[in-house]
Amino acid sequence: MSMFDQTTTDHSLANLDLRRSNLGLALRYLRDQGPRSRAALASELGMTRSTISTLITELAERSLVSDGQLVQRSVGRPSTAVELDGRGVCGIGAEVNVNHVSTIALDLRGEVVEERKLSLDGRSLDAPRVLGHLVDLVRETVSALDQRGAITAGLTVGVAGLYDQTRDVLTHAPNLGWYDVPVGAMLRADLGDALPIVVDNESNLAAAAEATPGDPHRQDILVLHGEVGVGGGIVAGGRLLRGSHGYAGEFGHMIVEARGRQCGCGRRGCWETVSGLRALMDLAADPDDPIRDARMAIDDRLAELNRRANLGDARTLEALEEVGAWVGIGAAILSNALNPSTVVLSGYYAAIGHHMRPAIERELSAGVLAPEAGGTRVELSTLGFSAAVRGGATASLESVFADPTRVPRRTTVSGETA
Amino acid sequence: MSMFDQTTTDHSLANLDLRRSNLGLALRYLRDQGPRSRAALASELGMTRSTISTLITELAERSLVSDGQLVQRSVGRPSTAVELDGRGVCGIGAEVNVNHVSTIALDLRGEVVEERKLSLDGRSLDAPRVLGHLVDLVRETVSALDQRGAITAGLTVGVAGLYDQTRDVLTHAPNLGWYDVPVGAMLRADLGDALPIVVDNESNLAAAAEATPGDPHRQDILVLHGEVGVGGGIVAGGRLLRGSHGYAGEFGHMIVEARGRQCGCGRRGCWETVSGLRALMDLAADPDDPIRDARMAIDDRLAELNRRANLGDARTLEALEEVGAWVGIGAAILSNALNPSTVVLSGYYAAIGHHMRPAIERELSAGVLAPEAGGTRVELSTLGFSAAVRGGATASLESVFADPTRVPRRTTVSGETA
Repeated sequence: MSMFDQTTTDHSLANLDLRRSNLGLALRYLRDQGPRSRAALASELGMTRSTISTLITELAERSLVSDGQLVQRSVGRPSTAVELDGRGVCGIGAEVNVNHVSTIALDLRGEVVEERKLSLDGRSLDAPRVLGHLVDLVRETVSALDQRGAITAGLTVGVAGLYDQTRDVLTHAPNLGWYDVPVGAMLRADLGDALPIVVDNESNLAAAAEATPGDPHRQDILVLHGEVGVGGGIVAGGRLLRGSHGYAGEFGHMIVEARGRQCGCGRRGCWETVSGLRALMDLAADPDDPIRDARMAIDDRLAELNRRANLGDARTLEALEEVGAWVGIGAAILSNALNPSTVVLSGYYAAIGHHMRPAIERELSAGVLAPEAGGTRVELSTLGFSAAVRGGATASLESVFADPTRVPRRTTVSGETA
Repeated sequence: MSMFDQTTTDHSLANLDLRRSNLGLALRYLRDQGPRSRAALASELGMTRSTISTLITELAERSLVSDGQLVQRSVGRPSTAVELDGRGVCGIGAEVNVNHVSTIALDLRGEVVEERKLSLDGRSLDAPRVLGHLVDLVRETVSALDQRGAITAGLTVGVAGLYDQTRDVLTHAPNLGWYDVPVGAMLRADLGDALPIVVDNESNLAAAAEATPGDPHRQDILVLHGEVGVGGGIVAGGRLLRGSHGYAGEFGHMIVEARGRQCGCGRRGCWETVSGLRALMDLAADPDDPIRDARMAIDDRLAELNRRANLGDARTLEALEEVGAWVGIGAAILSNALNPSTVVLSGYYAAIGHHMRPAIERELSAGVLAPEAGGTRVELSTLGFSAAVRGGATASLESVFADPTRVPRRTTVSGETA
């Protein structure tokens, strides 16, 4: 199901390491900076034209790059731009949530190749059954990729809970009712060891998906993800900050009100008690209002809330103002610590955040010590609820960008042999 | 005053880049893992014995490594261990504080070579005068290093205030009374462009000094630094997290009490109003108590407080308990976000933290969602008030570890020419 070329053939180990490192450098450069002629690559990477040609030939033999459009130069003949080739290799991202399991396959360019989703009731099924459904989706995805002739680089699974990456165990997932479940080992038992499998917190993966390669405003970001619970993730210098055990990003349980409201976690005054979806709905509507009905689809409840806000309904606007202020207070606490270039609002914050943004920005300016809120700006995520699977698929592809020789040669462009 | 060998000689650019990268890799490996035989280096770095020999010869010609003790092997003759050579190159760290300017020079091994400090009253002198005194100390340090035959790799200056690294300007330093001072440009005007000069927030540099290379418990750390103000820094994956403008680590101004105490910054409820030195002293002693006298040396005031706590004085212990609890509440907020392996307490927290630690650990366990406080442990800094200059000197040396060819060849060990 996945094939990796890890033989050293006749190269010395040292030369192989250098070659891997340079192949990765060139591939990441094309990802971050876009298509380039070989001459431009040589000049910008400080390598000789012949070194670049050798590297590009090898990347093409591994189906990772291909020749694209002609580029007109100021002098001389037009040259061909090298670009990432989306056909050769894909990464799979998956998600285990209370209401569904889902997978997505992205190619090297980040384009969606395959998407699958199965609705289920995660509370009424046990962990082996839920993971069994996920394994089915993964198998179908890998098989579809095989048929397209694409190799699967790996699988990264986001779970809604605390995931201890040092032990590879889901320690605490109250929404699923799962405690100390070895998700990684269970998936490997079904899917085998050939496919690299990583499990991570879904909010961390969703945050990683917001860090657009090459975009300077998306290298130091704070992603705030609102549902009933509130979480998110931190990207610093383009890299996801996971912390020592993988537990980073549990923003919802920062205590922001001493002697505050009771939280589902047993503490008082956690940030999610004042900034989560329930806090908003409680303020915005009476208990018998249909938008308070948790059985109604979340998108429909938020659409109705948006409709009321757009009509100028005072109670709705006051609720959005109050919860928005609390979102801003938490964002300011974290921005004093992290000084992100951008606070990205995702989950329900993205759906209704345009009504909350003035309050968020006001509290951010008021609460951050540095002038002009430290330069931090507020943006709404455009990734929707697929952010976690996208981030997972991107993480799966990272191994290829780090070491392109993990994808086997399939054609021999030059006279060399693999 | 500093000499860099940036000529490419007869190497092609590409080969030079590879050589630099491999020289840096070997040098950092010796720093992080300690002295090694050439054979062990070759095996552990996955390079051939001859590649390693060439690299070590070049590092020795640049006075960065030397042959140390004989290592007995299980089979065959004993071999010589290669180790970092402390004599060839030093980094300078400096600090501009309200009460003093100071410098330290560390060699490649992190040993202190030179230390200078000048007490002054930063409030009564203007910025050019204070920086003039610092320039004198730096000149004396560089001259002393020259006399020892050591090259100065660079100068990194910590300032007590908000430093915008994108504009290279100290935007806001209320303790000094400095606003929008271009510290970097002013130092360069006096010291010239040959010496690389970087200016940073002093708490960030102090935090970087706590990240011990090679120690797995010191790669993801949260440093909390208490004085009258409270600040600190974040190290993630061994790298200082500076944020988009360099403003990260302003923990003292996280709002932890809605409608809380008035802070010097103009806001209410900032963490430093309940966790700073003034909060502790206000609780521990009456206004006419000598330990409340800000003119008394801070070390003496803390020594007296320690003495009272050791004697079991109830008021002192209650004050340490209450402020310790607030330190723990803030540490928990940040640990939910960052999941550090270690919270390092520095500044006054280090001096008296053994009396506060039970309260800090209790609140950390209570306030962190992940089990067992996410594995985070609490340690007291042992670096004292020299942490910022040490972190600065270490940062100055990073350029050498990144690219050892910045230090010129001085001897020719093999038959090659420079």
